[in-house]
Amino acid sequence: MNFKGIARIVGIALLLEACFMLPGMLLSLWDGEPDVALAYLATEVIVLAVGGALFLWGRNARGAFYEQEGFVATSLSWIALSVLGCLPFVFSGQIPSYVDALFEMVSGFTTTGASILTDVEAMSRGLLLWRSASHWIGGMGILVFLLAVTPAGGGYTMHLLRAESPGPSVGKLTPRMGQTTKILYGMYIVLTIVNLLFLLAGGMPMFDAVCTALGTAGTGGFGIKADSMASYSPYIQNVTTVFMLIFGVNFTVYYMIVLRRFSAALMDEELRLYLGVFALSTAGIAWNIRSMYATLEETVRHAAFQVSTIMTTTGYATTDFDLWPSFSKGILLMLMLLGACAGSTGGGLKMARVLLLMKNLHRSVRRSLHPNTVRVVKVNGEPVSEWVLSNANAYVTAYCVMLMGSYLLVSLDGFSIEANISAVFSCFNNIGPGFAEVGPTLSFAGYSAFSKIILTLDMLFGRLEIFPMLVLFSRHTWKRSL
Amino acid sequence: MNFKGIARIVGIALLLEACFMLPGMLLSLWDGEPDVALAYLATEVIVLAVGGALFLWGRNARGAFYEQEGFVATSLSWIALSVLGCLPFVFSGQIPSYVDALFEMVSGFTTTGASILTDVEAMSRGLLLWRSASHWIGGMGILVFLLAVTPAGGGYTMHLLRAESPGPSVGKLTPRMGQTTKILYGMYIVLTIVNLLFLLAGGMPMFDAVCTALGTAGTGGFGIKADSMASYSPYIQNVTTVFMLIFGVNFTVYYMIVLRRFSAALMDEELRLYLGVFALSTAGIAWNIRSMYATLEETVRHAAFQVSTIMTTTGYATTDFDLWPSFSKGILLMLMLLGACAGSTGGGLKMARVLLLMKNLHRSVRRSLHPNTVRVVKVNGEPVSEWVLSNANAYVTAYCVMLMGSYLLVSLDGFSIEANISAVFSCFNNIGPGFAEVGPTLSFAGYSAFSKIILTLDMLFGRLEIFPMLVLFSRHTWKRSL
Repeated sequence: MNFKGIARIVGIALLLEACFMLPGMLLSLWDGEPDVALAYLATEVIVLAVGGALFLWGRNARGAFYEQEGFVATSLSWIALSVLGCLPFVFSGQIPSYVDALFEMVSGFTTTGASILTDVEAMSRGLLLWRSASHWIGGMGILVFLLAVTPAGGGYTMHLLRAESPGPSVGKLTPRMGQTTKILYGMYIVLTIVNLLFLLAGGMPMFDAVCTALGTAGTGGFGIKADSMASYSPYIQNVTTVFMLIFGVNFTVYYMIVLRRFSAALMDEELRLYLGVFALSTAGIAWNIRSMYATLEETVRHAAFQVSTIMTTTGYATTDFDLWPSFSKGILLMLMLLGACAGSTGGGLKMARVLLLMKNLHRSVRRSLHPNTVRVVKVNGEPVSEWVLSNANAYVTAYCVMLMGSYLLVSLDGFSIEANISAVFSCFNNIGPGFAEVGPTLSFAGYSAFSKIILTLDMLFGRLEIFPMLVLFSRHTWKRSL
Repeated sequence: MNFKGIARIVGIALLLEACFMLPGMLLSLWDGEPDVALAYLATEVIVLAVGGALFLWGRNARGAFYEQEGFVATSLSWIALSVLGCLPFVFSGQIPSYVDALFEMVSGFTTTGASILTDVEAMSRGLLLWRSASHWIGGMGILVFLLAVTPAGGGYTMHLLRAESPGPSVGKLTPRMGQTTKILYGMYIVLTIVNLLFLLAGGMPMFDAVCTALGTAGTGGFGIKADSMASYSPYIQNVTTVFMLIFGVNFTVYYMIVLRRFSAALMDEELRLYLGVFALSTAGIAWNIRSMYATLEETVRHAAFQVSTIMTTTGYATTDFDLWPSFSKGILLMLMLLGACAGSTGGGLKMARVLLLMKNLHRSVRRSLHPNTVRVVKVNGEPVSEWVLSNANAYVTAYCVMLMGSYLLVSLDGFSIEANISAVFSCFNNIGPGFAEVGPTLSFAGYSAFSKIILTLDMLFGRLEIFPMLVLFSRHTWKRSL
């Protein structure tokens, strides 16, 4: 195991985190809250010390950097960022319990948006900004950013990108991975700014607009109001619906649009499935809740917003969907599982994987009727290797095992089956709110510390798509290398 | 499509059904219930007429009988048996609604045991016997029986067995399939009689013992008491726990024991997984419910019974497990998904498939670390073909799609998420009771006719493991052949 190489990556990630914390610190000074600024300062010292030490020790790393190192470095970076990044909440006393603060931080980085805060409006703006910024950082991935700003070299780039990027395959954009990450972040920044401008144009206050745009871009979902997005104007709600959808699309599609390959972008099978699921779910829910709202506009607005927020795994809310009828809640529960597109900032199983699974199923049915024909699964006209198919299937198994295991452990707290299932689905798929005891108007504060740790791990496993974390915790990884 | 070949199979199946109905008719005469006997007689006339006509038309069937014909004949046989077999309930007026009677009959044949009866003790013994007998017939499979008693010929035997038998592969017992079915039914009859003798030895009345043994052997679960098995003695409850477990084991294991290959039987990986899951779940639940019962004996007895009844997909109950804490209900919910062993009378995903999925996952994790190694998945030391693995994975996809789709449709009735999820899991995996509105002390009577039809289809899809029914309903099947 290339320990120095791993230390170097984790070290740089922490140094970057120290930079990303500065705006929050400055805002708390501006707001005249010296205790919060001091909490930031103490954290900065610790982060810089740990990050600097790791970087210095690992800076002259030699030797190969393989898949295994990529998985371990990615998992450890995410853990280190969360374990230290939550310190301002603790030091400032605004989230006194360390387990709670860690939950909140991991919820931020993994773009989950589940909160243990019972009164979000009581928190300082300086801390709220860091909370929302963590969504933006985690959405596209801190290591992708690291690769975009530092020249890391071939093995590093490929294996880190593979471990951190969601979806069944990676690296289609350009053959040169370093360039890929720059293009990705460029598009990400531009889209975030456009979203911000649209919000400001609707008269949203600057602070609210920045936090909302950061949370939308990362498909995170931390709100800064007790009622999430319910009190904002219909215009702002609709803008957010559209931008959540935009950030749930595979960024490869935008790259193709930039290259003016419009037909390839529009014909993308994953995009069509994604938009189809959005339209169908919105229609189904709007029909089901038609008697609950006064006008058709209001009904469709709430239906579209909630479908968009759940399927892109963002987690804002404009209405208490826990009060909706069973059918609508059923649709939302299903969307929680499916998730957004691969290569987007959204979480979940990913549409690309759903597409592969359905095509594999179709092939199996056909082949059980005609055993002597050989069929190749194709996506967008390109054949898919058996290895990618087998991997997508294995991912589903791992996904089910993780969901069931954590559901069981969390149910030790005695909450309702509905709350436990939706809490686990919501955390693992990085969505945020669930139903019943963890509904959109409530928080995860009621769970025990043990359950919060399980759900925190779920968020990390879900965001990194299981395998990197499995490798980190595997006996096998450490036995061979120590 | 070989229509005559299919008609011949369905015809024989119906003629056999007419024979299996006779004991119920005789019992209702003995009990002095001429109206019930008349209802049987009318049904017999219809079944014999339809079955006879189909058989006569198809008796000189020629031409090949392929996978497609096997799937269609199997699906149609099960549908025909249910559609006509439920008539005694309707004609006697004891289940006036045809949809309800069909639900009850399909629940019987598929060994689900879910009931729409709100007062089972009000039903005539003559009808209760037919209800329990349908479990026994459906457990091992009516077409397996048909093949055991009639010489059908190569193509017929193989393709019908493959369509009807549960689990990822079939036909390992002996190279000659016709002989296989005789051995299977021989062991099935012997074990059922042994179970009956154990129940009688505990002082159970003859009628109760026969119905209980038939329901246990088929892992069905229709009770003849309002409280299922709660009022029987601990001895009878324990005997039933053990025999449910016995009928959930792959019958190949018993065949190996008959051949005195004891070590091969005991080393069977599926058997070990099955018994391990049973032991772990029982221990977990017993610990969780320890404060609810007076003695350790009572606690363990209830825990073991409920674990056995759910994991073998039988569905009896000795206590209202809907009142158990969330953790215990969580374990039961999970066992609903897993199911019993392949090649047993139990339903669910099957342990053999779970084993394949876990091994495929393990291989994927290893291979993502070491991409250049080729690994073969082995079960019991034998390599498993990629096609079998891919099929097991495709089955999981189909399973999830069916569960989600029917859950959505059923949730239109507005029951709780807990009830809807457990109702769909319970019907699809042929278990019987669920939680909340469909808990073990309640029935499915409250669902709308539409939901009952969805759940009826779920039971059929679940029992036949999806593909045969998919083929039957596929446009492709009929477009090519008409």
